[in-house]
Formats: sequence, C-alpha cells, structure tokens
Amino acid sequence: MRASCILLCFFMFLAVSSAYPGKKKQYKPCKELVLYFHDILYNGQNAANATSAIVAAPEGANLTILAGQNHFGNIIVFDDPITLDNNLHSPPVGRAQGLYIYDNKNTFTSWLSFTFALNSTEHQGTISFIGADPILVKSRDISVVGGTGDFFMHRGIATIMTDSFEGDVYFRLRVDVKFYECW
Amino acid sequence: MRASCILLCFFMFLAVSSAYPGKKKQYKPCKELVLYFHDILYNGQNAANATSAIVAAPEGANLTILAGQNHFGNIIVFDDPITLDNNLHSPPVGRAQGLYIYDNKNTFTSWLSFTFALNSTEHQGTISFIGADPILVKSRDISVVGGTGDFFMHRGIATIMTDSFEGDVYFRLRVDVKFYECW
Amino acid sequence: MRASCILLCFFMFLAVSSAYPGKKKQYKPCKELVLYFHDILYNGQNAANATSAIVAAPEGANLTILAGQNHFGNIIVFDDPITLDNNLHSPPVGRAQGLYIYDNKNTFTSWLSFTFALNSTEHQGTISFIGADPILVKSRDISVVGGTGDFFMHRGIATIMTDSFEGDVYFRLRVDVKFYECW
Repeated sequence: MRASCILLCFFMFLAVSSAYPGKKKQYKPCKELVLYFHDILYNGQNAANATSAIVAAPEGANLTILAGQNHFGNIIVFDDPITLDNNLHSPPVGRAQGLYIYDNKNTFTSWLSFTFALNSTEHQGTISFIGADPILVKSRDISVVGGTGDFFMHRGIATIMTDSFEGDVYFRLRVDVKFYECW
Repeated sequence: MRASCILLCFFMFLAVSSAYPGKKKQYKPCKELVLYFHDILYNGQNAANATSAIVAAPEGANLTILAGQNHFGNIIVFDDPITLDNNLHSPPVGRAQGLYIYDNKNTFTSWLSFTFALNSTEHQGTISFIGADPILVKSRDISVVGGTGDFFMHRGIATIMTDSFEGDVYFRLRVDVKFYECW
Repeated sequence: MRASCILLCFFMFLAVSSAYPGKKKQYKPCKELVLYFHDILYNGQNAANATSAIVAAPEGANLTILAGQNHFGNIIVFDDPITLDNNLHSPPVGRAQGLYIYDNKNTFTSWLSFTFALNSTEHQGTISFIGADPILVKSRDISVVGGTGDFFMHRGIATIMTDSFEGDVYFRLRVDVKFYECW
C-alpha cells in the first residue's frame, strides 16, 4: 500500500507537471472573452453623453479638466457600456463599473479597480479586476480577482489595450479576459 | 506505466468531475457566515454618530448632500460596525472598512470595495470584497477575493441585501458570506 | 475499476491532507519576497519629491493637510518607489501604485488597495493587494488577490510593517509577500 502510494504520488506529480509546465505562457485558458468598453469623460459640456466623471483631484486642480502633471491625483468614477465589438453604438452587453486613478506626475500611468456586470443572453454575472495600467504600453496585464454568476469563483488575467481615444474625452479599451481557474 | 498513467488521469478526471459538477448551484460552501453592517452617513449634523463620509463628488456637488443624478460620482469612505444580528446596538464583532461609489447618473447603482476586519471570540481575521452593487435589486452577489487570519486564503461569494434604510442617512446591509475555497 | 477509484480517491485524500494540514500556521509559502516602499505625501511644499497626494477629503478639510479626526475621510493616491532594502535612495525595482484611505474618526486606521508593478532583472510582473491596515498595530496581514507576469495567478498574504515614518510626510512600509498559491 505504501508502495502504491509512492507510485501514485509520482504519477500525480507527472500529471501535475504536464498540466502546469514550467513556462507560464503554455497555460491554456479554460474560458476566454473579448469585450470592449467605452469611457466618455465629463468635461463640463457633455453631461448627456458622459459615462464617467472626475470626482477627486489634487490641490489646485478642478473637476472638469484633468490635472496638470500627467493627470496625477485624479480619480475617475465610471459606469461604461460594454460591447462585443469596437462600435460604441453596438447593443451593450453589460456595464463596466468602478474607478481609475492617475497615479504618477512624471509619466502617464493609471491604476484600475472595476467590475464588469454582464447582462446578455450569452452571459449573466460579474467579473472583477485590479491592476496597474501603464497606458503608454501597448498591451497591459491586470488581474481577474473574482467572479459571480456564470463566472462563479473564476480567476484569471485580462490583457487590456487602448483600442482608440479622442483627446481626453473618449477612450475605448479592448479587454481580453482569460480565465485560468473556472468552476 | 504509460497505460497506468492514462488510467490514472481518467480516474482523476472522474474524481474532479464529481467534485465540480456542471451546475454551479450545486456547490456547497465550505464555510458560511451571516453578518450585518450599519452605515451612518455624515450629513453635516450627525458628526457624533456618523460612520461614513462623502469624500468626493462630481463638479457642482458638495460633501454633505449626496449628488443630484442618482448620486453619480460620489465616493463614500466608511468604517462601519459589524453585528451578528440586525440591531445597530448589538455588540460589534468587527468593522467594515473601505469605500463605495455611486457610478451611474441614470439609475441608482453602486460599486464596492471593502474589508471586514473581524475581532471577536469567534472570529479573528479579515475578509476582502469587490463587486458591483445594483442597489435596487433585492439580492446581489459580489466576490470575496481574499482573507487573512481565520480566513487565510479563503475565496467565495457574498450575497448582500439591503436589510433596512432611513433616507440617505442610515442603511444596513445583510451579508451572507459563502466561502467555496477554504484552507 | 470502481474499487480502484475509491482507493485512488482515498490516496488523493491522504495526499491532500498532508499538503494542507489543519493548522494554518503550518503552511509554507511557495514563494516569498521582502520589499519596501516609500511614500512621500505632498504637503504644499514638496512638489519635487512627493510621490503621493491627498485627493479627497471630508467636508471642511483640505488637500494639503491631512484631515482632523485621525485623517478620517482622506483618500491618498500614490505611485511610490519599491526598493529591496530600507533605503529610499536604493535603486527602485518597481512602483507601488494605488490608493489608501483613512477610514475612522476615532482611531488611526486605514484601508489599502494597490498594485506592485515590478520591473527589474529579477522580477517582471504585478502583484495586487487589498486589506485593512490598522496602522498602530505592529504587523498587519492583507490579502494578495492576484498577480501577472512572474506572479501569474499567484495568491497569498502580505504582512506589512511600518518600518519608519517622519511626521505626516514620509513613511516606509516593509512588505513580506508570502505566496501560498504559485503557478
């Protein structure tokens, strides 16, 4: 029995090592989604369309213009439509809700914490994200820290890319959500 | 040996499929807690009792009255007592600490990120949460993204319900914390 | 075949129970890092050096002085250098980005949500954290809720200690990151 156990452990080790190989890029997601979300920042003139607003700013800055030094210190609260393609006018499949901050005065970088609340025939549930977002880099990885509904207990990585932007008012993020832990 | 390994993998597959059946509602929590927390929002007149404060607001709003359009853009910082029943005056078993935001100008919805710091004879440790909170829906699921102490490395889902509220000043949330990953 | 399966499950149970013993203090991290980060809070006079700023404050407070009642209601946004030792002038190995809040008017306590973006020869990737931070306690545990790059899908606990501080302007945190889930 002891021998079988050792043998078994060895087999388990084999099985595990083939499932989780040393190189992390060989992992295969157990579920994958590509989604876009659209952020229209309130600038004092677009109240009807805006989906986000500056709600905090450092000393000397105001709430209708992003702060001077790479927007350092601004907190933006958002509730943005999510679409399946890169068209702002496509039927939304949910809302991206949360906040982002601009956190550095010497370069242009942000930090995000938000939730996708999906509500479509295909997906019902939420996915929550946290991560640093060095905006000037083409593709950035953030963490998928939890999910509910169809994404019950899921975890993973999201690769985000700035798909388009217009000045400081509109930007669109492409989000490749890759779950590596599915339940 | 190869054959045994294949057989083993097949058995492991069987074992895993019985442990994680297809329907997510069949999961059984490995630990469960029902807790209440009580939020008393500072409104300019209740400094002695208030447990939370508006600390950010969109342009044109102020910090003693929630903002106009469904409170869109307000950030509230809180440190609320947690109790085992729905009585604000019961002995607190810990504090709920973090922030919530009102994130939509067309409907009444919020987003939460906070930690329960429990400190009682029964529980010592923290539980951290993130999620969208569509307040008008009776029961909402958010993610339990981590824990420490008695909740070391735990993950799960919390179902939150507005148990009671009085105007904009007091509300009480019932939180059913269901851990599906216990260590 | 059924019998083998039962036997197997039993062995699996044995294997699992030895890996995850009942007492949580017996867990051994699969990876460990000790890092320091340095927060220099903008106070109206140190614009050149400051790495963080007060961006939100409760009614009656301002953005260059921390608020009166144990700083209750302040939100601070930061992008702080991370070093391998406790010397602010050591070469940074990354940036700590995110926010902290002071959340209680009766005692001195905060709540944190942030990401380490590491970028050195030794480590490339991010680690995200959430937790309550009762500053006056010597060592506090917060949750490591996700990682990317070299920390792909990692989870764990971080023990934080105030290593040094100078008034309200400078503080240094020592962070012992202990991963218990490595991929």
